[in-house]
Amino acid sequence: MSKPELIRPYKKEHDTSYTCGAFATIELLRSRPALLRKVFLHSEFADGGALAEECARLGVPVARGDEAFRRVMQKENVYAAGVFGKFEDPPRPDQAHIVLDSPADMGNLGTILRTAAGLNITDVAIIGDASADIFHPRTVRASMGALFRLRFAVYGSFEAYRQAFPRHECYPFMLGGEALPAVLESADTPLFALVFGNEARGLGDEYAAAGRAVRIPQSELVDSLNLPVAVGIGAYAFAKKYGLVQL
Amino acid sequence: MSKPELIRPYKKEHDTSYTCGAFATIELLRSRPALLRKVFLHSEFADGGALAEECARLGVPVARGDEAFRRVMQKENVYAAGVFGKFEDPPRPDQAHIVLDSPADMGNLGTILRTAAGLNITDVAIIGDASADIFHPRTVRASMGALFRLRFAVYGSFEAYRQAFPRHECYPFMLGGEALPAVLESADTPLFALVFGNEARGLGDEYAAAGRAVRIPQSELVDSLNLPVAVGIGAYAFAKKYGLVQL
Repeated sequence: MSKPELIRPYKKEHDTSYTCGAFATIELLRSRPALLRKVFLHSEFADGGALAEECARLGVPVARGDEAFRRVMQKENVYAAGVFGKFEDPPRPDQAHIVLDSPADMGNLGTILRTAAGLNITDVAIIGDASADIFHPRTVRASMGALFRLRFAVYGSFEAYRQAFPRHECYPFMLGGEALPAVLESADTPLFALVFGNEARGLGDEYAAAGRAVRIPQSELVDSLNLPVAVGIGAYAFAKKYGLVQL
Repeated sequence: MSKPELIRPYKKEHDTSYTCGAFATIELLRSRPALLRKVFLHSEFADGGALAEECARLGVPVARGDEAFRRVMQKENVYAAGVFGKFEDPPRPDQAHIVLDSPADMGNLGTILRTAAGLNITDVAIIGDASADIFHPRTVRASMGALFRLRFAVYGSFEAYRQAFPRHECYPFMLGGEALPAVLESADTPLFALVFGNEARGLGDEYAAAGRAVRIPQSELVDSLNLPVAVGIGAYAFAKKYGLVQL
């Protein structure tokens, strides 16, 4: 009997990561098949046959065996995984952006990527090298594979982002800003960048000068909204105004 | 030396639960002080003095000592905790509701409670006894203490909820519904109930007949939006229309 093939535990410095779960693995296979190095299938995965066939058609090697999953399954059952090469595909200069300054939580980052894809704002910039790791399996999982539908890059500072994209109209979301409905009413370009801060700190005061500061109207009963929820409300409002989602 | 006082590990059948963290503990103290049985303070909690003073004023016993925290701290540092009695304070018949059918994840449920409070929809109904436990410390923590600002109750079925609240206009959020902007335009009562399904399954088809089904416009790039994000987008739209948040 040969030694079972294992999934290498993730490290930030590796040039590969992996999807955990059938849904994200299928998203990867459909959206960015060229990145896929290997697919792992668990013996109890009911739809394993169809996935294996698609892999065969694309020339992606498939490893069967349950040993590989023991290490990557934490609480939930995982029946498929896909090892993929990390990729670079930066946001485009002629598309709307979502900009995240120092998101700290991988679950939040993944949820925001899923939201961005769901609202058809497919170009994302992350500010700050200490941000949550966009390629970490936990981020990939929270994104439900939406990661593979997006273009994104990390910028060392907001200034570096602005140098790369000087034409975007920036909308920093801050508690002291103008109410979202009023901002939307007079917004006048589809080339917008919606900018959101860290979960605990929000955006620093210096962002007030970076564009037209926006506040999501909210009650006095909370300090702030949850970050992915705030991104959802802001991005939906802009996506609707500029026809990015079909009404 | 006396035996240190400990926080009893949480169980669903207990009539008490606890907040984990200063923020939620302060929310509890301010919103529902009568529920508070005891506050635990860690020696490294910088603002412990002010909190202890407020407890003394309200006659709430304070336990100092770090031993109690060892068991309830998981990944993050926790410097304050408050043991509180579970309470009943059901949604009101003359207020807008958020209705959640079988939410499964405690983090999501807590985030939705925070969102509901943030958008001033302060009355929440949960359908299904197998739903995530609203009093679990993890739900409380994800809510950032917003739980204590709300009224809520669990109903065994949607029919039981409807019997209790026959006058509400129900808006089940479903992929097959009418687009949110069109629904909003013709919505005509502030006595609304926004109904959302389980994370994995959404709402069952039977909900289509329960009211005016609503779809949040979204791209083909994802199967669905994350549940708290969907609640945020839907609740914000209604809160804005009916003036629940100040613009």
